[in-house]
Amino acid sequence: MTRFDIITCQPHLLTGPFDHSILKRAQDKGLVEVHLHDLRKYAINKHGQIDDYAFGGGAGMVLMVEPIAKCIRELQEQRTYDAIIYMTPDGQTLNQPMANRLSMLQNIIILCGHYKGVDQRVRDLFVTHEISIGDYVLSGGELAAAVLADSLIRLIPGVLNDESSALSDSFQDNLLAPPVYSRPADFEGHTVPDILLSGNTPKVEEWRFEQAVQRTRQLRPDLLRDEKN
Amino acid sequence: MTRFDIITCQPHLLTGPFDHSILKRAQDKGLVEVHLHDLRKYAINKHGQIDDYAFGGGAGMVLMVEPIAKCIRELQEQRTYDAIIYMTPDGQTLNQPMANRLSMLQNIIILCGHYKGVDQRVRDLFVTHEISIGDYVLSGGELAAAVLADSLIRLIPGVLNDESSALSDSFQDNLLAPPVYSRPADFEGHTVPDILLSGNTPKVEEWRFEQAVQRTRQLRPDLLRDEKN
Repeated sequence: MTRFDIITCQPHLLTGPFDHSILKRAQDKGLVEVHLHDLRKYAINKHGQIDDYAFGGGAGMVLMVEPIAKCIRELQEQRTYDAIIYMTPDGQTLNQPMANRLSMLQNIIILCGHYKGVDQRVRDLFVTHEISIGDYVLSGGELAAAVLADSLIRLIPGVLNDESSALSDSFQDNLLAPPVYSRPADFEGHTVPDILLSGNTPKVEEWRFEQAVQRTRQLRPDLLRDEKN
Repeated sequence: MTRFDIITCQPHLLTGPFDHSILKRAQDKGLVEVHLHDLRKYAINKHGQIDDYAFGGGAGMVLMVEPIAKCIRELQEQRTYDAIIYMTPDGQTLNQPMANRLSMLQNIIILCGHYKGVDQRVRDLFVTHEISIGDYVLSGGELAAAVLADSLIRLIPGVLNDESSALSDSFQDNLLAPPVYSRPADFEGHTVPDILLSGNTPKVEEWRFEQAVQRTRQLRPDLLRDEKN
């Protein structure tokens, strides 16, 4: 059982992603627990304040240290966490090997930034991993947290119906996936490669491998170079 | 007005993200329209079929060409699209300059993959841009579509309350953002850097720039190298 505690000031943003599809099924199967914690419940005053202006001035609000500290400490009183992850564009960039490693942890807190981010002292005192999902800025950390959780949850044994499906994904072998085709064999004159209709499984596998290598060489030569390192 | 048409077999995954926060406000302000299209409404038969096994065998289902073609063509009858984007791990990796460019388009279709992806003929015949949000695999393209839309929508003038807020983000100047602090100035003995409390704005800006450069050099030296190219 893997447990995710997600701390956010926008819990509604996350209900869609976690209430449907494989993220829902993983929870129904008892393989994963996802708990959303509304940061406003840990506000510093009765006005529900959780953010304030940045010291030194400038545009954008900062999520304050006190509400976040209170929420994390309450969770830590109940269990030990393997990782307290802060989603931030200046974190380490998520990739498949990182997802593979993190998917083996048991208790994970994910802290979503919002506005200009969290008070630096949260990062210095509580956070164990800072992760970015890519070199672009989002309106908040919620979607990034959903992406991270999704990438981990689908790797947990038993979550996908067909386990071989995750192993043949892009990136698991440093190759992009080969092209796929389904019915009809002829769509308005655009036909499926003959080899795929041949029933010759070894030849099909050979073709797929060649296509994967060719596609990777053309689109992402950096993945092939990484393998040599 | 920027219009997004998102084609998906899991529309419920996207209702949370688009019904809240700035994505909702951007729509309320009339700056953005987001339309979700359920692929099952374009199924090839009365059983609602939209996917089938891959020719050549192997695990995982493929989204068929016919329902997607039908949906895209219906949309194209109503207006011209500047981009038909397919979210896929083997696409071009999203970054901030790409988001900046795409945010200037008016009519955008985003096609979400699911399972093993879409029939290759969809990509060959209809798709104009193939985009990945990062080198990891998700259970579907829905979260990736939400991430892409969020990264674009927040750049549309008028969407963020304080426009200077987007310009001072990470990546817009090839630098990571400097640390931010808010009240209290002293949290359990952990204090805010004196300079930020000085009221000396030019010194504060200088400190922030130095911190941004130092943080980028330490965490993401590749961003500084890119600038030189």
